[in-house]
Amino acid sequence: MRREQDLDHFFSPSSVAVVGATPNKAKGGYSIIANMLESFDGPVFPVNPGRDEILDNKCYPSVKDIPQAVELAIIFVPAAQVPTVLEDCAQAGVKAAVIESGGFAETGEEGRELQDRCAKIARAKGMRLWGPNCTGLVNTDPFIFTPFMRFPDLNQRLHKGNLGIIAQSGMLAAGFMIQYVLSGFFKVSKACAIGNKIDVDEVDVLRYLADDPSTEAVVAYLESIGDGQAFLDVAREMVAKKPLVILKGGRHEESARAALSHTASIAGSDKVVEGALRQAGVLRVEDFQDLMDLGKALSLSPRPFRLSSAEGNNIAIITVTGGGGVVTTDLARDDGLQVPPLEEKTLEQLRQVFPPWMAPANPVDIWPAVEQGGFEAFSAAIDAVVEDPRIDGVLLLTFSSRFVGQFPFEKMGERIKHAGKPLVSWVFGDARFFDVYRERMNAIGAPVYDNVRSSVMALAAYLHFSRIARADAAGSTAG
Amino acid sequence: MRREQDLDHFFSPSSVAVVGATPNKAKGGYSIIANMLESFDGPVFPVNPGRDEILDNKCYPSVKDIPQAVELAIIFVPAAQVPTVLEDCAQAGVKAAVIESGGFAETGEEGRELQDRCAKIARAKGMRLWGPNCTGLVNTDPFIFTPFMRFPDLNQRLHKGNLGIIAQSGMLAAGFMIQYVLSGFFKVSKACAIGNKIDVDEVDVLRYLADDPSTEAVVAYLESIGDGQAFLDVAREMVAKKPLVILKGGRHEESARAALSHTASIAGSDKVVEGALRQAGVLRVEDFQDLMDLGKALSLSPRPFRLSSAEGNNIAIITVTGGGGVVTTDLARDDGLQVPPLEEKTLEQLRQVFPPWMAPANPVDIWPAVEQGGFEAFSAAIDAVVEDPRIDGVLLLTFSSRFVGQFPFEKMGERIKHAGKPLVSWVFGDARFFDVYRERMNAIGAPVYDNVRSSVMALAAYLHFSRIARADAAGSTAG
Repeated sequence: MRREQDLDHFFSPSSVAVVGATPNKAKGGYSIIANMLESFDGPVFPVNPGRDEILDNKCYPSVKDIPQAVELAIIFVPAAQVPTVLEDCAQAGVKAAVIESGGFAETGEEGRELQDRCAKIARAKGMRLWGPNCTGLVNTDPFIFTPFMRFPDLNQRLHKGNLGIIAQSGMLAAGFMIQYVLSGFFKVSKACAIGNKIDVDEVDVLRYLADDPSTEAVVAYLESIGDGQAFLDVAREMVAKKPLVILKGGRHEESARAALSHTASIAGSDKVVEGALRQAGVLRVEDFQDLMDLGKALSLSPRPFRLSSAEGNNIAIITVTGGGGVVTTDLARDDGLQVPPLEEKTLEQLRQVFPPWMAPANPVDIWPAVEQGGFEAFSAAIDAVVEDPRIDGVLLLTFSSRFVGQFPFEKMGERIKHAGKPLVSWVFGDARFFDVYRERMNAIGAPVYDNVRSSVMALAAYLHFSRIARADAAGSTAG
Repeated sequence: MRREQDLDHFFSPSSVAVVGATPNKAKGGYSIIANMLESFDGPVFPVNPGRDEILDNKCYPSVKDIPQAVELAIIFVPAAQVPTVLEDCAQAGVKAAVIESGGFAETGEEGRELQDRCAKIARAKGMRLWGPNCTGLVNTDPFIFTPFMRFPDLNQRLHKGNLGIIAQSGMLAAGFMIQYVLSGFFKVSKACAIGNKIDVDEVDVLRYLADDPSTEAVVAYLESIGDGQAFLDVAREMVAKKPLVILKGGRHEESARAALSHTASIAGSDKVVEGALRQAGVLRVEDFQDLMDLGKALSLSPRPFRLSSAEGNNIAIITVTGGGGVVTTDLARDDGLQVPPLEEKTLEQLRQVFPPWMAPANPVDIWPAVEQGGFEAFSAAIDAVVEDPRIDGVLLLTFSSRFVGQFPFEKMGERIKHAGKPLVSWVFGDARFFDVYRERMNAIGAPVYDNVRSSVMALAAYLHFSRIARADAAGSTAG
């Protein structure tokens, strides 16, 4: 039996009970039932012994009283009541339960014992458990949204997407990611906040997302890795098929100690973790913002790009500010990228749009050409560099202003699509026009950031996963 | 004669001529005259041989025709006409000129010769020159705003401030900084975009800002340093009195080469630059965003804080998310900060607000205390850690939501003010409430960022400059 198929009970159940549902809008139990009624297509049963009806739906005193089969239970009641609820669920033939309540292992010995009792009840009946101490999960196809924070107009804010998110953490960091999911910053396939990992853990959800056809890339925030070998095996397998980015704290002795005291599990020697992740081809980042920024990039363009240089890490910088080109070259070198000289053929092509006094080079200082020939100089320059066999990707530094509509977005899009190479952009200038620029660029598959470092990081990530795909393809051919 | 006093001609002239003024709103010459008429308190004379009147002001064919004395000329005419304009200025007794036009040394040999001719004319008459190929300068006390970009409601957007900005660069990177100046992100005393540095250079403006009583901190974006020794002498002298942060590209061989081809001057061996800057106590950053973020922090709190530990680099992290504390500890260690254990007295104080099952530590995992006792737990925790003699500064990781008004901002402000220690915050969560949180925190002198890295960088900068001040004070005492 492939254990991971059990997770379908969580991501696409046929029916759901919400234990701890309430009409009191100040409570999490209200948010869950309201969110579920709004997002979920199948039957949703509120459970609360003190109510007859919640939001126009009949309310049941216990899961056992529900007259239909229930596949998934979402539980948000005080920790001490959870074992009883689980026994009811087990008796009613419930296949899986998301426990969102806190008050378990994260609160010390007593909570840990309670958690162990829950695990035992579920194990005896073959019921899978998710949590506790978490916001649960989101699936966008079919829709299911379990978090206990209420988001009005949920259906308008949830869109089918291709990015998988894993957030092992207490509620707050997971809540942060849910905010991103709903902000439209990227489009998500599945989001998993796995909490205390009483049963379903990072290996389970990673394996599930690796096999999930609607998930094309995964970003994960992990605090501890339980079974390191199993995790690395799944990670390696995934990276051969889709990008995986991980934020894992505990790189220094002090932070590893903090991780140890904060989570119940062992954080593991970071040097071992670091080496193993790198060998598996996983990209590791250092800040929550980095994880979200790479999620954006990989969601926009998850598939590997065509690398034309042997190294696969050579970029062209096209910039409206010479100084910006210098700063970007520094950050690119820090991230292991090269900014090589362009081919003579490419330089010749650039000379066509450059003023006669200006010698083209890499970084491509494009502003004099724009002053001379208008915004078409941008697509002309992209056209030139993407055909250069020394160049694997393009970084565009530009500005936003009321003239932002003049950028030749479609042409730029055709050029990079034809060449199969990635384009990432830093934008500065008049912030009122950032959104327009970002939307138009995203439409051609190019992520946009408001700082150089994130732009370089995104381009480096694209090339990193493209190199892995190339090596993998070469390995397959050789084999 | 102290050369830098000449710069008063630029920053607080008694009268100004705008050569190249035009009523054509599409032109930079319109923006300059409109901005100057709006921002400048003294007489402003438009100069343009083809017009009788511009914006209801009498227009003169040449500077020589202006019936009053002109102290400063702002010049925005085609490069080839600039020498003649300068000769007119010299004849009319003009003391200084800002040349904003491009088309000089940055365009090659011919432009360089033109630039040399301008320098010669000015030198012969003792007239100081600023630029060319730049946006000029901003002073907020008295107001003067020379850039050729038009910003309506300039007077509402310009506020007196304490941050000095230097941007040696072509127009675009300087334009980026002007946008920040006007956005209200920080409050500026003087902004200097020095362009090709035909005469006034980075050493001149740095020395001027070092002596300027309204400037309390300086951030500088430099592409090249002409006279390294002179620059370092001024920088060292400044850092003893006020913080100085520099972004200078060219850290890698490839970027140094790009810098060389982009600017006319020699970029210098970066290793020498790096070592000398560090020795002078200057803080060097890597991205434009970092420079702006530190500008914000130093503008809010330019003066040194009270360090209580011997190392002066020990921080307490107060966090609503345990995992956030771990990630932050990693980034803090990367930046040379320590996250030491707290004193027993501090732990005892924290136990008063912590639930019994939770043992306080550093990072201070505050969420269970907030759940138990409400938002007052934040000020209680700050109160405890700022009095700990092992702690020099505080990083607060928290979230924004519709309850953001419940934060005890005033109490937190009193605590840190009383202790004389810095507080910096990372905020995540519901972005609709970021602005409220940021404004309230800024009002108590605490900068707020939406990513951990910037928060850590700001706190590290505060402690860096406080250590220099302490060492300096100790040196003075010893001497």
